[in-house]
Amino acid sequence: MGLNLSNKAVVLLSGGLDSSTTLAVAIKEGFECHALTINYKQRHHAELEAARKVAAKMGVADHKLIDLDLRAFGGSALTSEEAVPKSRSQASMACEIPATYVPARNTVFLSIALAWAESLNAFDIFLGVNAVDYSGYPDCRPDFIRSFESLANLATKAGVEKTGKFKIHVPLIVMSKKEIIKLGDSLGLDFSLTHTCYDPKKSGKSCGLCDACILRLEGFREAGIADPIPYERVGL
Amino acid sequence: MGLNLSNKAVVLLSGGLDSSTTLAVAIKEGFECHALTINYKQRHHAELEAARKVAAKMGVADHKLIDLDLRAFGGSALTSEEAVPKSRSQASMACEIPATYVPARNTVFLSIALAWAESLNAFDIFLGVNAVDYSGYPDCRPDFIRSFESLANLATKAGVEKTGKFKIHVPLIVMSKKEIIKLGDSLGLDFSLTHTCYDPKKSGKSCGLCDACILRLEGFREAGIADPIPYERVGL
Repeated sequence: MGLNLSNKAVVLLSGGLDSSTTLAVAIKEGFECHALTINYKQRHHAELEAARKVAAKMGVADHKLIDLDLRAFGGSALTSEEAVPKSRSQASMACEIPATYVPARNTVFLSIALAWAESLNAFDIFLGVNAVDYSGYPDCRPDFIRSFESLANLATKAGVEKTGKFKIHVPLIVMSKKEIIKLGDSLGLDFSLTHTCYDPKKSGKSCGLCDACILRLEGFREAGIADPIPYERVGL
Repeated sequence: MGLNLSNKAVVLLSGGLDSSTTLAVAIKEGFECHALTINYKQRHHAELEAARKVAAKMGVADHKLIDLDLRAFGGSALTSEEAVPKSRSQASMACEIPATYVPARNTVFLSIALAWAESLNAFDIFLGVNAVDYSGYPDCRPDFIRSFESLANLATKAGVEKTGKFKIHVPLIVMSKKEIIKLGDSLGLDFSLTHTCYDPKKSGKSCGLCDACILRLEGFREAGIADPIPYERVGL
């Protein structure tokens, strides 16, 4: 845990595979975890219920759900009525910034996590970003994370008074989806509680065709582990 | 307006003296202003009404009010039931980080402004911070602002694709309250619409004794301009 005296951490938890695995890593590293879920009025509200279940099952110290209506600004398929892209190849996903990019989302999420961390006297923040599968998202890159870390140490009372040094932990940043799934599996994560789909069906099933479903399904297949969640179609 | 092709700007507007003057500066500089008010469940809800009036009077292109409950995290007299300090000298205010500091507030505000700016294809963000009177707030310092500017250019699709360069404008950062009031006056700002007090009374009057009232009253006195808002007591 480095130089910081506190063993508290704020963990951003969407209820998806990556953030749930990140929470499992933080717990394994001995942190007292304060899970933070931000309801930005994303289309896939099922994530919030998944976050609740994952947090409860994994025994976090606290779980806060914060509302912030990013729909008010538009600009993303995840927060508007714009269609979610379907059945795209991974090569196509890798070449462009996807329509599901939410402007400045990780900056907003990390800022809110920083506000809570400072209130808790915590200096460790965990974020499940990944620069491999989501290389098209600017706010998933290591340069962005390091820049936010510098900012955090200038932006806060704790940073100015040097009572600790903020660290943004991104344990999954260079992992493939296959590696993330294997890691989650090794830490005992219950994958049946997690939610991934950008376009879930009323039945509760995942669509199986959006970018997120395709990456998840492919990851489980490569890891040789069965994905326990139900899909409407499997588009691979 | 530098290299950016857009003349749109997002202006953080609390409804106080500084942010209202900042909006007047942005309008004077020729920006099409999109005012952003964040309701972080601050104790002084009267600010929100002031922001509405200022935005309407000054003819902004758009005004959005976004809710974000920072009370959920605690850690500040502005968002809790903790008492607001009263009748302090300016020397005492300058020597410490005040109880009214809200953890990571400006980081959160700028992040949300960045999300809106990116959605609008705007690259200019105005923030009415001041490093003179509020030298105790870490997130009012020039180093923090420059750090956020770097972050913004790493954090966004627009930054990655280099369609523009984000600039955080802080026109008041080295001004005294007296200078800010003189500037607002020269730009025709209607001070009667602004709200400053941390602890307003049910009558609608400002308390006259909190740090914010003391700085405002002293600023008007030094500027030789009459403050048009009503006070319950004047503690100077």
